[in-house]
Amino acid sequence: MPAVHVINGPNLNLLGVREPSIYGTATLDDIKTRLAELCAARGVDLVFRQSNHEGDLVDWIQEAGRAGAPVILNAGAYTHTSIALYDAIKGAGVTVVEVHLSNVHARESFRQHSFISPAARGVIAGFGPASYVLAFAALFEK
Amino acid sequence: MPAVHVINGPNLNLLGVREPSIYGTATLDDIKTRLAELCAARGVDLVFRQSNHEGDLVDWIQEAGRAGAPVILNAGAYTHTSIALYDAIKGAGVTVVEVHLSNVHARESFRQHSFISPAARGVIAGFGPASYVLAFAALFEK
Amino acid sequence: MPAVHVINGPNLNLLGVREPSIYGTATLDDIKTRLAELCAARGVDLVFRQSNHEGDLVDWIQEAGRAGAPVILNAGAYTHTSIALYDAIKGAGVTVVEVHLSNVHARESFRQHSFISPAARGVIAGFGPASYVLAFAALFEK
Amino acid sequence: MPAVHVINGPNLNLLGVREPSIYGTATLDDIKTRLAELCAARGVDLVFRQSNHEGDLVDWIQEAGRAGAPVILNAGAYTHTSIALYDAIKGAGVTVVEVHLSNVHARESFRQHSFISPAARGVIAGFGPASYVLAFAALFEK
Amino acid sequence: MPAVHVINGPNLNLLGVREPSIYGTATLDDIKTRLAELCAARGVDLVFRQSNHEGDLVDWIQEAGRAGAPVILNAGAYTHTSIALYDAIKGAGVTVVEVHLSNVHARESFRQHSFISPAARGVIAGFGPASYVLAFAALFEK
Amino acid sequence: MPAVHVINGPNLNLLGVREPSIYGTATLDDIKTRLAELCAARGVDLVFRQSNHEGDLVDWIQEAGRAGAPVILNAGAYTHTSIALYDAIKGAGVTVVEVHLSNVHARESFRQHSFISPAARGVIAGFGPASYVLAFAALFEK
Amino acid sequence: MPAVHVINGPNLNLLGVREPSIYGTATLDDIKTRLAELCAARGVDLVFRQSNHEGDLVDWIQEAGRAGAPVILNAGAYTHTSIALYDAIKGAGVTVVEVHLSNVHARESFRQHSFISPAARGVIAGFGPASYVLAFAALFEK
Amino acid sequence: MPAVHVINGPNLNLLGVREPSIYGTATLDDIKTRLAELCAARGVDLVFRQSNHEGDLVDWIQEAGRAGAPVILNAGAYTHTSIALYDAIKGAGVTVVEVHLSNVHARESFRQHSFISPAARGVIAGFGPASYVLAFAALFEK
Amino acid sequence: MPAVHVINGPNLNLLGVREPSIYGTATLDDIKTRLAELCAARGVDLVFRQSNHEGDLVDWIQEAGRAGAPVILNAGAYTHTSIALYDAIKGAGVTVVEVHLSNVHARESFRQHSFISPAARGVIAGFGPASYVLAFAALFEK
Amino acid sequence: MPAVHVINGPNLNLLGVREPSIYGTATLDDIKTRLAELCAARGVDLVFRQSNHEGDLVDWIQEAGRAGAPVILNAGAYTHTSIALYDAIKGAGVTVVEVHLSNVHARESFRQHSFISPAARGVIAGFGPASYVLAFAALFEK
Amino acid sequence: MPAVHVINGPNLNLLGVREPSIYGTATLDDIKTRLAELCAARGVDLVFRQSNHEGDLVDWIQEAGRAGAPVILNAGAYTHTSIALYDAIKGAGVTVVEVHLSNVHARESFRQHSFISPAARGVIAGFGPASYVLAFAALFEK
Amino acid sequence: MPAVHVINGPNLNLLGVREPSIYGTATLDDIKTRLAELCAARGVDLVFRQSNHEGDLVDWIQEAGRAGAPVILNAGAYTHTSIALYDAIKGAGVTVVEVHLSNVHARESFRQHSFISPAARGVIAGFGPASYVLAFAALFEK
Repeated sequence: MPAVHVINGPNLNLLGVREPSIYGTATLDDIKTRLAELCAARGVDLVFRQSNHEGDLVDWIQEAGRAGAPVILNAGAYTHTSIALYDAIKGAGVTVVEVHLSNVHARESFRQHSFISPAARGVIAGFGPASYVLAFAALFEK
Repeated sequence: MPAVHVINGPNLNLLGVREPSIYGTATLDDIKTRLAELCAARGVDLVFRQSNHEGDLVDWIQEAGRAGAPVILNAGAYTHTSIALYDAIKGAGVTVVEVHLSNVHARESFRQHSFISPAARGVIAGFGPASYVLAFAALFEK
Repeated sequence: MPAVHVINGPNLNLLGVREPSIYGTATLDDIKTRLAELCAARGVDLVFRQSNHEGDLVDWIQEAGRAGAPVILNAGAYTHTSIALYDAIKGAGVTVVEVHLSNVHARESFRQHSFISPAARGVIAGFGPASYVLAFAALFEK
Repeated sequence: MPAVHVINGPNLNLLGVREPSIYGTATLDDIKTRLAELCAARGVDLVFRQSNHEGDLVDWIQEAGRAGAPVILNAGAYTHTSIALYDAIKGAGVTVVEVHLSNVHARESFRQHSFISPAARGVIAGFGPASYVLAFAALFEK
Repeated sequence: MPAVHVINGPNLNLLGVREPSIYGTATLDDIKTRLAELCAARGVDLVFRQSNHEGDLVDWIQEAGRAGAPVILNAGAYTHTSIALYDAIKGAGVTVVEVHLSNVHARESFRQHSFISPAARGVIAGFGPASYVLAFAALFEK
Repeated sequence: MPAVHVINGPNLNLLGVREPSIYGTATLDDIKTRLAELCAARGVDLVFRQSNHEGDLVDWIQEAGRAGAPVILNAGAYTHTSIALYDAIKGAGVTVVEVHLSNVHARESFRQHSFISPAARGVIAGFGPASYVLAFAALFEK
Repeated sequence: MPAVHVINGPNLNLLGVREPSIYGTATLDDIKTRLAELCAARGVDLVFRQSNHEGDLVDWIQEAGRAGAPVILNAGAYTHTSIALYDAIKGAGVTVVEVHLSNVHARESFRQHSFISPAARGVIAGFGPASYVLAFAALFEK
Repeated sequence: MPAVHVINGPNLNLLGVREPSIYGTATLDDIKTRLAELCAARGVDLVFRQSNHEGDLVDWIQEAGRAGAPVILNAGAYTHTSIALYDAIKGAGVTVVEVHLSNVHARESFRQHSFISPAARGVIAGFGPASYVLAFAALFEK
Repeated sequence: MPAVHVINGPNLNLLGVREPSIYGTATLDDIKTRLAELCAARGVDLVFRQSNHEGDLVDWIQEAGRAGAPVILNAGAYTHTSIALYDAIKGAGVTVVEVHLSNVHARESFRQHSFISPAARGVIAGFGPASYVLAFAALFEK
Repeated sequence: MPAVHVINGPNLNLLGVREPSIYGTATLDDIKTRLAELCAARGVDLVFRQSNHEGDLVDWIQEAGRAGAPVILNAGAYTHTSIALYDAIKGAGVTVVEVHLSNVHARESFRQHSFISPAARGVIAGFGPASYVLAFAALFEK
Repeated sequence: MPAVHVINGPNLNLLGVREPSIYGTATLDDIKTRLAELCAARGVDLVFRQSNHEGDLVDWIQEAGRAGAPVILNAGAYTHTSIALYDAIKGAGVTVVEVHLSNVHARESFRQHSFISPAARGVIAGFGPASYVLAFAALFEK
Repeated sequence: MPAVHVINGPNLNLLGVREPSIYGTATLDDIKTRLAELCAARGVDLVFRQSNHEGDLVDWIQEAGRAGAPVILNAGAYTHTSIALYDAIKGAGVTVVEVHLSNVHARESFRQHSFISPAARGVIAGFGPASYVLAFAALFEK
């Protein structure tokens, strides 16, 4: 495993900045720092990105596929609307662990269908920033 | 945390016995052994049970609630049909991590709705026996 | 009328114990005591039971049918998922008054369909423990 | 409690006059008489009305709200089609017990949704004229 | 047959006054005149009314029921939303021929369900003012 | 108007032969006879046919179109399943009055949608054999 | 423009009287006063009405049509259930600006369909009493 | 084939006891006797059971799987609600012939979907007690 | 019982000819031969037909009705689309056993609704050619 | 490739005869002539047919299957209602190019589902008579 | 209020250039000019942008949030498909007035649901370029 | 016709690179080469592009509109989710032939609705790279 690619979708750059009473004070940079430590301990590189553009996420999944790297993917709202992401995962043949900070199943009904899940190896949702940590651990479970 | 209760629903006793080419050769006992080791390392007790009866699962969730213990719950098919389990989790005020061996979102449509998820702290699905290990780890993430 | 059978479904044993600020401090035993007094005043026996098992509820409805006793039935979550209870009421030819503590129509959408109602004589919902008292009274209205 | 307002919706004036083999021989006047006796025993006034006009029912619910009186409401067919009645109950802040003569859940599918129930304190259905009597009793249960 | 009651619902008073290029120049009065001639020829009285109020239509159907008179009913938009009219026809035991000027089945989807039809003897739609004439003829067919 | 084509669909040949207590004793031949008399009085020819084959009905509608003749169409069960009939009416540019012996709106739900109605001039349903007579009259109303 | 007709539907007479913490302290009379000032400044008459009766709203829309006056229409709950209002607007050929005090799209699902909108010139929702002021301004935008 | 397991679900123990005018006078014991004779003639053992508990049915299907025995399964109401039974059949790798006494397709709509059928070898419904006899014969057809 | 009519619908003439690895090598003629033997043993005549035309199937069901003969009906794809067949069975008053070679419930969703079943005495599906043999046996069970 | 079979469904015989302003003046014979020229140039035979009978289309698809010939299929309205055609294509193992003159996706909603497409090699729609020419070309693309 | 941000979504750059008979001759620049005048009069800055990229709209809403500026948002087609925009508005805590040039409720059904509305303060639709002017006014109403 | 614009959507850049056993070994460059030859033969320019960004596709469709060039559009996954593309085609007044490599109708249900088709001149799907060649030919058919 040459590297782990962590791809974050729309509005995740707002994490920790606004409404800390709800989402906590951890920022996306805090998550990046935590994962960088875990990667260092495992001796793998970390590619950590965020974009509000669906097309960027598709580009980056393809890039991970070319690099042979697994992906931790929090696609944010595009989880629920993007068939292009599903096709990218399938087409690039990449291993994806889908993560969500919140328990999406306890929220609005439109958040309860994921186009990504059927193409993912597995799903981890509801543990806040720890969802990323668990996803990282999952990559090293047999 | 006095103990961790692991509650398994219908047909999970068949794990590893039949169709090993599909589900692998790990049995429910193997999972129990792995979790027992993890519990021992953490110094907490393990209560590990399986039943094909929905009512047993409700009883055991209530029991965990009375014991103040968190629950790792793989409710199997009852995940998709049991409002009673949802009410038990809510009523007993218990912390539940919902786990699934397979990626339920890539299977039949009737497996894509969970009555349990809205009452759970989080969901981990698709990592085989490792789903339980990740759920255990999740209990100790803040 | 030889006796009144009161059958309570899943999680009703939690009543009054948890979240008293929401459900009040009355327990299922308090309800039993109140009904016992009413039965005594009417000179009829009281059979009062609770189970988390759908099959137990089916068994008990059949038993009431054999005894020729009317049933006050709070089937809890099974109200919304159990065709077996519907069949039991129809098959056993028993008079059933369906009760609910809360106003189920003001709650989650999955609580707004009852499989039991079409087989019941009538429905009383939303009056807390008094729902049982009103149901008892209903049995003695012409 | 200064008075109890009983509000009856469309076609309830036909009660007892037509098809007595189905609906029984009790008329709406008989129900009024029975409730008048109960009110007298309790020392509260009775306001008892019927209209085929949805707007009248809205007017009367508002009037009860201004009088601070609880309402026993049999909205007939408007139960299933009137959001205006729901808004009136909510807006007037009135306590409403919804009643139905028949067990609406055992009838046509379009009678199985009530716009009123989510705004009502509770629902009593299926006991014929006794539904009103039970609703009156419910007002005096704590 | 003492009389024929013709009951017209909301907005039918606009007939012939506005948009004559679409609906023709015949007014509701023209239809009344034509039916009056037919009634005279048959020796029966004609009661011909229009209202924009759903409650008025319910009142008038009940009145026809008390008079033992058949009804030609064009309920306009209430055709598609009024369960109260359905109940009135059923409850009053009146013979109703449902008419529509336009072919409602070739219009908006919300006009393609009628709450009235299941309670009517028959339906005649699409023939303009002649729909009323055919409905009148239908009353005299065996 | 050179002729009136009356086209009857599947199972209408059973009319009057079986279950006379339900459908009456009038046969399809009786209806033909009645219409023949009406045609004779009007001086137009009558083409009266029945088939259990959807394709025959399409053929005959096209034939009526070529002859410039209006059609009285009772398509029986094909009313609810045949887009081909809809296309035939539209494509052949023929005037069609859709008739039904029974009040289809008071029967099974699958009989409550007609593919034919949007292409028909109007619909007459529920008057038994008289539905045909009224349809014939409708052809001569302006 | 001879006058502006402002038509208010069911329960809007409760505005400002109850639950001022939610709906504010402005009453319907306050809105009327504000619009009267705006009309005076423009030199047009104001017709301002409220009713809980659907039929009254239909009557008044027709009346505005006969007067050639535009309508500011807050149909309240009838927005979501009344095809008769849709027909009235279409039939009377009147210009209607649909207004709502609250943002109906952020409320219950049954408030998210409007039968009126397809017949209205435009919709303004969510600005409290200012919705009326903006609607008035809209009438004078080209 | 060592034995045939016949598994009966909820309320089938009521067969023949109640409403004999509808369901006939044959009891479940009569069916057991008939199948015992057929088994004796074939030289195979018969395991014949009934329970109102879904979990018992799951247990017994697993038991048949371990015994390598085919199952004749009448799951009663659980046919329509139990994914656990579907999983049990799939997981246990057992041959199942699904039977129903009545023609479920001619009854309530909620009886027209079976979770079991996709996992069964075949389905036999509508022949009363003879459904079991035909299912037994089916086991011996190639 | 003068004869048994076996009616086969569209594409069943392809049986055994194509894709024998899937459907087996038995042809429709083989099934006919087997049933002819069974009929000979019982001393009843066999009428065995196949057509790709829905209308032919309707004709033949009516013919069986006139002959007073029971029908074994495999309507193939018309099972799922033909209301005309349903009407034919009902109208002709014929006893029908519906058969399918495959387990239709384990196939595409559009094969999981049968218009025929509600009019049939019973259904047998999933046993290949043996489905016909079992259906024949069913005709001679009480 | 011995021959190309072109199969046309209901109402396509009306092409060019009626409503030329909409469908153009090309007739089905013109299309046949164009394809005959293309076939001649390729040295393959042309079988060109039209029928309004669903059964004929099934027969002809089977016939093409026996001849090993590819099919250009414009099933007209049966595209949207015929599972029998789907089964015929699958059962006969024939290569089918589905064509439509109009862009069916821009028309009525009931034209937007095709039972044929999942069994076809490909679909060409919206190019008028040229759809057939493109389909012919498609047969000779790799 | 430091500035007003006006954000325009896909295809709004085509305004006024094509199909002026439908959309009028006003271009997006004309709207910008009008708003610039209004801003100047109010002494606030104007940020006016258009993009066909969903991600740009998300970026700009976040930017407005950081600037503490209210947003007038015409998201064009993304109104109906973008959960990311909903999340951006919620996450950035920005005041949004949703505008549409046309009356979206009178157009295709897929335009009648807005993901944005539940997060917006209010909605203004149907007044052409004046929708923007009214939205600007709304920002200054209390 | 100055040029042909070929616009390819998300993940089409993966063509031929991955999973050649499924999609073949032809790459998007191979398709470009083939079309370039065809364009050269016709004397028109070729603009051939691919992007994973929905906004790029919208930009390019508008650009083709300004150039007066027809478009061959394979929008990939955006076919099924993008109203913005529909609006771009309509707004830019461009001629679009929609193409798909695979037979989308034989794949997942979410691929069976196209937002683009109603705005396209026609659709060609299922012929692999030849779909583009046929689309090019279609542009030159009258």
